[in-house]
Amino acid sequence: MRCILIVGDGMADRPLAELSFKTPLEVAKPVNMHKLATYGVSGLLDPIAPGIAPGSDAANLSLLGYDPWIICSGRGPFEAAGAGLAFKKNDLAFRCNFGTVNENFCLLDERAGRIGEEARLLGKVVQQVKLKKNSDVDVFFKQAIGFKGALVLRGEKLSPKVTLSLPKNGCHVGAIRPLDGSYEAKHTAEVLNEFSQLTYDVLKLHPINVQRSLSGKLPANIVLPWSGSKIPEMKSFASKYGLKGACIAAASLIKGIGKLSGMFVPDVVGATGDLETDTIAKADAAIETLKTSDFAFIHVEAPDEASHDGDYMGKIRIIQKIDAMVGRLLEKVDLNETCIALASDHATSCKSRAHTGDAVPVCFAGADVVKDDISSYSERCAYKGGLNRISGKDVMPLMLNYIGISKKLPDEQ
Amino acid sequence: MRCILIVGDGMADRPLAELSFKTPLEVAKPVNMHKLATYGVSGLLDPIAPGIAPGSDAANLSLLGYDPWIICSGRGPFEAAGAGLAFKKNDLAFRCNFGTVNENFCLLDERAGRIGEEARLLGKVVQQVKLKKNSDVDVFFKQAIGFKGALVLRGEKLSPKVTLSLPKNGCHVGAIRPLDGSYEAKHTAEVLNEFSQLTYDVLKLHPINVQRSLSGKLPANIVLPWSGSKIPEMKSFASKYGLKGACIAAASLIKGIGKLSGMFVPDVVGATGDLETDTIAKADAAIETLKTSDFAFIHVEAPDEASHDGDYMGKIRIIQKIDAMVGRLLEKVDLNETCIALASDHATSCKSRAHTGDAVPVCFAGADVVKDDISSYSERCAYKGGLNRISGKDVMPLMLNYIGISKKLPDEQ
Repeated sequence: MRCILIVGDGMADRPLAELSFKTPLEVAKPVNMHKLATYGVSGLLDPIAPGIAPGSDAANLSLLGYDPWIICSGRGPFEAAGAGLAFKKNDLAFRCNFGTVNENFCLLDERAGRIGEEARLLGKVVQQVKLKKNSDVDVFFKQAIGFKGALVLRGEKLSPKVTLSLPKNGCHVGAIRPLDGSYEAKHTAEVLNEFSQLTYDVLKLHPINVQRSLSGKLPANIVLPWSGSKIPEMKSFASKYGLKGACIAAASLIKGIGKLSGMFVPDVVGATGDLETDTIAKADAAIETLKTSDFAFIHVEAPDEASHDGDYMGKIRIIQKIDAMVGRLLEKVDLNETCIALASDHATSCKSRAHTGDAVPVCFAGADVVKDDISSYSERCAYKGGLNRISGKDVMPLMLNYIGISKKLPDEQ
Repeated sequence: MRCILIVGDGMADRPLAELSFKTPLEVAKPVNMHKLATYGVSGLLDPIAPGIAPGSDAANLSLLGYDPWIICSGRGPFEAAGAGLAFKKNDLAFRCNFGTVNENFCLLDERAGRIGEEARLLGKVVQQVKLKKNSDVDVFFKQAIGFKGALVLRGEKLSPKVTLSLPKNGCHVGAIRPLDGSYEAKHTAEVLNEFSQLTYDVLKLHPINVQRSLSGKLPANIVLPWSGSKIPEMKSFASKYGLKGACIAAASLIKGIGKLSGMFVPDVVGATGDLETDTIAKADAAIETLKTSDFAFIHVEAPDEASHDGDYMGKIRIIQKIDAMVGRLLEKVDLNETCIALASDHATSCKSRAHTGDAVPVCFAGADVVKDDISSYSERCAYKGGLNRISGKDVMPLMLNYIGISKKLPDEQ
């Protein structure tokens, strides 16, 4: 038996006034997700615990059975691994955003107007940056998708104990501060501030940015590192579950989680991490990998992106594309031989444009599932389902259970 | 956004033969609680964990997000703080009951016939008591409400390791024993036994007690200390949640929890902790405090008192008074700006006259709650609700989530 876990990032939501107090998932009328619910057992899922709003790093790690309270010291290493940056044991890795600042270094947009493909060329320019004042530290940058990238710092006396958050719009950039009194933290803050300053120097008058400004778009004139950490110690997915895993994702955070947990992480042509992503290509990639793997983790980033933009119509459209992906899987996969689970890693509210601590709908379909009466996949139906309310950490044990290899206690040899 | 947590102490119950196997909550027909359920999301709540019958100290601390397994070493410090006794770091604080003993020190009633206002004068007499045999220890007593009071011991070589329980009716009083072989425990047991003996000496022939005996009431002729502890280390409510809290309560235990967690604890005129309590005054006090606070904890003690007396008709009446309080809140508060949660801290059975380990109904109403189909607030409807089954520790995270300030993981600075 094989298994597939489908995650729509931030797919769950709250009732929206603009949608007559329905959720985007309800309005999308996802027929294939409803089919999955009909064939399976549904419930509510707290990615971490009731009321806790997780970052996508914590949430997806939790769904894969890694304890986010232990492992989530920062998403940097996952982003860096996902972007394809090599790093060593004592390196510090950061997630980066291309952003927009004005001449006073006041942040105008933390995503540079959601710059797309053009960021690739800007990334190549930033890759050339070398520190001058802090030349004892080597910097390795890579743009990943759109405004997202990653940075690795290599050198002596570095510490992740610096202010981690991306500055909010309106705040002054270049003011990363040490979080403790150590030389290492002070040094690291200086390194990061110098790096941002240097990226501004090479980006501000770059022809792409001049052109963007002329056409009324926000220039991507700075790179902002955040959420830094050393590489976490992770037990491999294979050794945790005895399953060969594959990770079908576009977002570098998720690809990095796949890589650092030892899964096979193919690059899927057409998987872009935004609303244009090719979800059918992702379904086909999952089906292909399941010829040699036991488990496919299919992650679609775009519902979260749409939610952070308050774009509920875009969210509805991407949910419909995920639904088409579910349809392709149901067409190609025999539920007698494969268990399919469907969830969000967390809810993201199109109203507040932020992750919430709400429980999300989850559903498992497979031959050995005790079916319930639920025939819809939505925030409002899930609570009536046969699973009641489960946690992120329960997903993999349930999956193993439904494919007949449940974890045993005591685990006698 | 602001929030209100309403707790009816021991309000939940079991079906009673005398009520045609309905619960007091069901018979009370609380229309405003039903409205709250209609507007919100319901579920079952295990104050601690399924099957665990908590004391009100453990239960209310758990609802406020304090781990009762760590913090509940004894209710004494909370009772003492609530009664307004000052105490120092190494003091031992005890809850006290006025009780009734016969001449052989056999306990006839652990609540002295639920003595009311008269206990105030008796309290002033007990306040004068000074130890003779153990004169190295200072004793500070204060009557709080009716038969309830608190005692603080100040001195060297004291230990909370003494038998803690109130003796049961029929047992011999004055036999508090050390729980370990230390001098401190032996000394503390002697101190407490001497204190009880001395209270008997000053109370047995007090005119109030003579009068009570003549009119067929039980005399309050002894003070019995129990549940002693040193002051616990508690993170303040404000620093835990970033919310300014107010505690609207009559019971000194709950006022003490409010005080020791750093909440604003007003004395509400008419809040008596018994069936005569003015619940509308409590609603108004909560509304008033919310002008300067973010969170109001409204606790009504009386349903528990009625349950311990097996007085199911009284319990129905006080539930109706709590319902009127909910009505007042719904009238005065805009659910678009305030989240209201309603729960019991635990169930108390009018049949067994004791706390039970049953789950209790809980409901959250507010603008951003994903509503369910439930339109009644009762033990028998709650399990069908959209929350499924949650724990006491989940209440505050869910509240924060519904007012848009959920706790985040990772919590980046």
